Amino acid sequence: MPTDDTSHLRDALDLAVDNVESGLGGPFAALIVEDDTVLAKGTNRVTTVQDPTAHAEITAIRAACKKRGHFELDGCTLYTTCEPCPMCLGAIYWARLDRVVYAASRTDAAEAGFDDDHIYQELDKAPPDRKLPMEQRLSDEAHRPFDAWKNDDDRIEY
Amino acid sequence: MPTDDTSHLRDALDLAVDNVESGLGGPFAALIVEDDTVLAKGTNRVTTVQDPTAHAEITAIRAACKKRGHFELDGCTLYTTCEPCPMCLGAIYWARLDRVVYAASRTDAAEAGFDDDHIYQELDKAPPDRKLPMEQRLSDEAHRPFDAWKNDDDRIEY
Repeated sequence: MPTDDTSHLRDALDLAVDNVESGLGGPFAALIVEDDTVLAKGTNRVTTVQDPTAHAEITAIRAACKKRGHFELDGCTLYTTCEPCPMCLGAIYWARLDRVVYAASRTDAAEAGFDDDHIYQELDKAPPDRKLPMEQRLSDEAHRPFDAWKNDDDRIEY
Repeated sequence: MPTDDTSHLRDALDLAVDNVESGLGGPFAALIVEDDTVLAKGTNRVTTVQDPTAHAEITAIRAACKKRGHFELDGCTLYTTCEPCPMCLGAIYWARLDRVVYAASRTDAAEAGFDDDHIYQELDKAPPDRKLPMEQRLSDEAHRPFDAWKNDDDRIEY
């Protein structure tokens, strides 16, 4: 049976509406699906757990990895009610998800008052041109952790 | 007393070396400092806690927010051993940190075998052009969670 994209995405939209109406956080939800089975769900909990990284996608990725007992989610699709922000899209790449299906765009999120599009624009700039001051220091010592890493024969790469 | 950038960044580099040598994760560490006092520390724990989002910066941001009891870290500086990846830079914007000081660049991280630069390049592309398949569906229903949000007079914005 092929995965039913529309059905999973509609479930995520329902979950996001519930999340708002229950006062649990922002208007976002995500599902992680493997072989048409829901592995994990996540909703936005930023303001209720006091964690700015508790976006729906990150919450779902962390829950799915816990369930799998592994830090990668190859073979899985992420369904999310809105185009992932840069933080969540980065997490999606690190988790090695196979595919993303989303409903609203970053422009829709901006119209609802969220910073996703603003952060995409900031990331496009060179570090010195961003609104957030970023300074590089100690570049001559920066290699020390990487040297330790290369010398560690027991390292687990990710 | 002005904040001693070099001292805090060197502490982060030492912490990252220790993290590798103790077998706790990748060669990255971060400190969050407010008024020259360390609010929280974080190291990379991806492979030991099975969480692809457990980068040093995210771990430090989550710990600092827990300590503050709030989802924003205005007034704080983040010291990190390496230029933040897109996931962590996104988290830094959402956390409203004041400033970032880093040692290694994304190019140094790529040379050490990490995907940071690759993910920056992917984020620059339009969704249909990325290596990760991304598809938009149900755009006509995507407004439902945002409508619930706008109608919720008790919403906490972030």
